[in-house]
Amino acid sequence: MDEYVDITVRVRYAETDQMGIVYHANYLVWFEIGRTELIRQRGFAYKDLEEHEGCFIVVTRASCAFHQVARYDDVLTIRTRVKRLQSRTVDFSYEVLSEDGRRLATGETSHVVTDRSGRPRRFPDRYLQALSTLAEGGK
Amino acid sequence: MDEYVDITVRVRYAETDQMGIVYHANYLVWFEIGRTELIRQRGFAYKDLEEHEGCFIVVTRASCAFHQVARYDDVLTIRTRVKRLQSRTVDFSYEVLSEDGRRLATGETSHVVTDRSGRPRRFPDRYLQALSTLAEGGK
Amino acid sequence: MDEYVDITVRVRYAETDQMGIVYHANYLVWFEIGRTELIRQRGFAYKDLEEHEGCFIVVTRASCAFHQVARYDDVLTIRTRVKRLQSRTVDFSYEVLSEDGRRLATGETSHVVTDRSGRPRRFPDRYLQALSTLAEGGK
Amino acid sequence: MDEYVDITVRVRYAETDQMGIVYHANYLVWFEIGRTELIRQRGFAYKDLEEHEGCFIVVTRASCAFHQVARYDDVLTIRTRVKRLQSRTVDFSYEVLSEDGRRLATGETSHVVTDRSGRPRRFPDRYLQALSTLAEGGK
Repeated sequence: MDEYVDITVRVRYAETDQMGIVYHANYLVWFEIGRTELIRQRGFAYKDLEEHEGCFIVVTRASCAFHQVARYDDVLTIRTRVKRLQSRTVDFSYEVLSEDGRRLATGETSHVVTDRSGRPRRFPDRYLQALSTLAEGGK
Repeated sequence: MDEYVDITVRVRYAETDQMGIVYHANYLVWFEIGRTELIRQRGFAYKDLEEHEGCFIVVTRASCAFHQVARYDDVLTIRTRVKRLQSRTVDFSYEVLSEDGRRLATGETSHVVTDRSGRPRRFPDRYLQALSTLAEGGK
Repeated sequence: MDEYVDITVRVRYAETDQMGIVYHANYLVWFEIGRTELIRQRGFAYKDLEEHEGCFIVVTRASCAFHQVARYDDVLTIRTRVKRLQSRTVDFSYEVLSEDGRRLATGETSHVVTDRSGRPRRFPDRYLQALSTLAEGGK
Repeated sequence: MDEYVDITVRVRYAETDQMGIVYHANYLVWFEIGRTELIRQRGFAYKDLEEHEGCFIVVTRASCAFHQVARYDDVLTIRTRVKRLQSRTVDFSYEVLSEDGRRLATGETSHVVTDRSGRPRRFPDRYLQALSTLAEGGK
């Protein structure tokens, strides 16, 4: 259950605000980068899920706790885990880590799988299997 | 406890994503607009709190549940309440409403008051009083 | 040729950066708000152009000169003009004005009209006429 | 004069809009990433210029021509050059290239050097020298 995927981002000037720190909404953008990368590491691309399967992973809940600030030009690690997986929904959890390993933020997102018109549907089987592996692995 | 402040935003093209709906992180930006307006309605500006009092309201937690989608050019109401207020912390709650009154999203943010260098401090008294009124009013 | 449409925006915290001023890319977002409003004032919505006519106004060039800084919570006027209109292209020009009338920024965008698949096409006639009026009016 | 620095970015979902392509204002954000990287390759960090020298490189003009669209998950190269360098101003030029080498966009930004309070000043000498090398190199 603890298998995770890491990806790094470098904080952009555009992501700071006048407090001199990262504007908090950007963490949700990084979470999206994290889960995109997790899916990629399992051998497929979220892009293809949309394009070829007409299948969308829509955000239904998002939360983030901000423990320590991140600043311009910091290199951060986004660590993503599949927290819970069902045939029509998936939850991810995230940690944002500084270069020296401090945990700057933690968060979760919940998602429902839909078709192009926004109606709930099941994950295509091979995607479900690929994600399952992650949800049960033990890195 | 149910006193709220409303402000409307019109969805910008920049706020949409390729699903054809509003990208979820933008709701946190709208929440910020909501609490800025709530503070303004109490007779002061958050800007002055920073500039004149050297006092910052930093986000420590944020969460949002997305019930229905919002789309480009929609006019949305951001309804903001003070949920809990203490001398050093404040929580706000939010509803995002469509023009016909549907509740598209709900959320909460928690904040700590800091000085310029990021150290926790108390709200200046008059700000605390102004916000208190809100937290106990009954619109 | 000098007819314009004004709309105001209030600077969001999210739009500032650690210099304590508005991050420059946001002016392009405001320009989009300006031209959306100009189109609306002519009696139709850009949203409908996309939805009902399958017609998209794609940006091909954008430029902005930044004369004076804008800051958090400032109320700015975005003044938009149709600069040049042809059956398949349109150019807009913009001024960003402070509350006391100073010209903070000026810019231009060029656009090509396309169908859903990105192929160039003509403006639908009634949209062309509505925009023409603007391009030749004299407010 | 043709020395350049490359850095890659992967298009984020947040950067797309409902046309299914990258929202145009994001190119200016990528340009900023490009010039930050160019400065880094010359042996110093823009962050330090601000923090240690109290010296800010403020954008005074920005322009971009969009030749072909970029899409979600595309890996793009931002190619940055110093176009013109003087003791108090600097211009950069940019190309955005697709993975197969197509030129998706080109742009330029102009900057003035200021102190903390926004007054024009000279580049610190060693920064000026480092950037000069670039402006005259021949990769």
